[in-house]
Amino acid sequence: MLEDKNQERTSLAELGEFGLINHLTEHFKLYNSSTTKGIGDDAAVISASEKERLITTDLLIEGVHFDLSYMPLKHLGYKAVMVNLSDVYAMNGVAEQITVSIAVSNRFPLEALEELYAGIQLACDTYKVDLIGGDTTSSTKGMLLSITAIGTANKEEIVYRNGAKPTDLIVVSGDLGGAYLGLQVLEREKQVFQVNPESQPDLDAYTYLIERQLKPEARKDIVELLKELDVKPTAMIDISDGLSSEIMHICTQSKTGCKIYEDKLPLDPQVISTSEEFNMDSTMIALSGGEDYELLFTVPIADFEKIKSNPNLSIIGHVVEQNQGMNLVTRADQEIELKAQGWNTFKEGAQE
Amino acid sequence: MLEDKNQERTSLAELGEFGLINHLTEHFKLYNSSTTKGIGDDAAVISASEKERLITTDLLIEGVHFDLSYMPLKHLGYKAVMVNLSDVYAMNGVAEQITVSIAVSNRFPLEALEELYAGIQLACDTYKVDLIGGDTTSSTKGMLLSITAIGTANKEEIVYRNGAKPTDLIVVSGDLGGAYLGLQVLEREKQVFQVNPESQPDLDAYTYLIERQLKPEARKDIVELLKELDVKPTAMIDISDGLSSEIMHICTQSKTGCKIYEDKLPLDPQVISTSEEFNMDSTMIALSGGEDYELLFTVPIADFEKIKSNPNLSIIGHVVEQNQGMNLVTRADQEIELKAQGWNTFKEGAQE
Repeated sequence: MLEDKNQERTSLAELGEFGLINHLTEHFKLYNSSTTKGIGDDAAVISASEKERLITTDLLIEGVHFDLSYMPLKHLGYKAVMVNLSDVYAMNGVAEQITVSIAVSNRFPLEALEELYAGIQLACDTYKVDLIGGDTTSSTKGMLLSITAIGTANKEEIVYRNGAKPTDLIVVSGDLGGAYLGLQVLEREKQVFQVNPESQPDLDAYTYLIERQLKPEARKDIVELLKELDVKPTAMIDISDGLSSEIMHICTQSKTGCKIYEDKLPLDPQVISTSEEFNMDSTMIALSGGEDYELLFTVPIADFEKIKSNPNLSIIGHVVEQNQGMNLVTRADQEIELKAQGWNTFKEGAQE
Repeated sequence: MLEDKNQERTSLAELGEFGLINHLTEHFKLYNSSTTKGIGDDAAVISASEKERLITTDLLIEGVHFDLSYMPLKHLGYKAVMVNLSDVYAMNGVAEQITVSIAVSNRFPLEALEELYAGIQLACDTYKVDLIGGDTTSSTKGMLLSITAIGTANKEEIVYRNGAKPTDLIVVSGDLGGAYLGLQVLEREKQVFQVNPESQPDLDAYTYLIERQLKPEARKDIVELLKELDVKPTAMIDISDGLSSEIMHICTQSKTGCKIYEDKLPLDPQVISTSEEFNMDSTMIALSGGEDYELLFTVPIADFEKIKSNPNLSIIGHVVEQNQGMNLVTRADQEIELKAQGWNTFKEGAQE
């Protein structure tokens, strides 16, 4: 429904691989003095540093991770970068470089890749990250992106998943469940469009949800906020697979349990109203929705005063001893064991 | 023809993504003290260093870059790592870490991925490289691998493509054209097999060529040799797209020309005999074959004595002024302009 059928079409074969990379990346700026050599040699060079380097990588595949019938290519480029930067921020680091590898079938003209790279460039400019390399090739089917992000952090600043301690507060940034509901809205519109291509969707009631799905932001601001507040989390992770799955990673690696309070989960009003519309339980969506790219972390209870009234942060529970398990305390004050309903692409992926 | 139809089949969905990664990587060793944190958090952590970091990445896609009907999965895993390490060595660096992202369709059982990772592990063990992260997901078609390699080098040791100077000698390691001819032999056998599945191929005359195609080695040894010889190249690149294409990269970036001598090109006897059998010109194959993963570099003429009698190195020409062009001097003493016939996947890739 977002596809423009009248677009220009320049074949990728005309440019060749080197011409293509040059064309797509010529307007990218470099922001970090650590980037000694970017695109154009066998490898990129990053200068020596007294800081540790953080490395993370993600693969995004059309038909598995994104659907171009409602994901504009520019948004896809932006989101693909966010997904990776989010992992650097989840280590309490500063993202400085990315590499971007893409493969596309001959269905995609040059103009499509220009859109994709416009989104990548916007992400780089906004987050002050340098594109330093990658690979560009053809695929036998559809589009895929593989991005690696490189960041820095002082050794003593790095926050792993395994440092949570009983009595620590469990804190989450932003709100939960929006990205998942945005996807549900877009999937519904796609079906309506397939039945009636003339229909004009009215998406005003879902703008926040759709933005959460199509243009998520990695929470660099939260890493900076924590520094300002002089709070160093004991454990941290980003929420890509849903709150339940992520808190369970922290607890398992920290050898602790947790209590999460249902009435503390931060939900946007659109999440509440749209959950009702879809006849879904908003708590379930907040716990298992995924793709929110918020930061989930634990802090010593002594930091309560620094955290409690910050509008960007919600205290949703606390860490307990491992033998107490990992539980949700419902509004009715019942304890229910958390389950990781994280996305398993091997179960849900398309069949060959 | 190399596929074993009686293999065990364990569905990937049974394990899920986290179980799968743990299963595939549990036997990998860590060799480098710089690897502070490998797989298991939002990002890997590499310790601070006084050396520069080198970063390179490559994407390999079934049906574009490899054909599993004659590429055993263990070899594919090994080769995919080599392709990336080769780029680190081409900077005169030491490879220390890799990340490996893979996507596979449901056609692949767990046992197939175990084979793939056995090859990756063999490469890591042989080259003393640590697997520190990656992503594992499903694809809608076939298999793809995205590998990022990370290396180190002292700032003054790094060799770029742009440092060649007129009068520099042009040197190549090993011999050329073998990997391309190995591919031709395997493609021919595949066609024979498709006509007559009972045929038993006799590949004894092509063992070297097939090994060059299926199990290339990245030339870490040459980087070490150059250090022993106290030779620092002025420019260096690895030969993935063919000698012509690579020397042209060096000349273009160094703003020079070159003369390459046909009678100096290092050819294995199997390359010569098999070129004749395929009715191909062995010089053409050496210039444009690709996938040799040898190192091509330039050294000051003052280093001639250090290089000349080394059995691993061939002096194939010299650097000239840019206005003299980039030429091959034939056995008949004629000058022919070099052309980059490097592989363009956008022209040759499969159609969607």
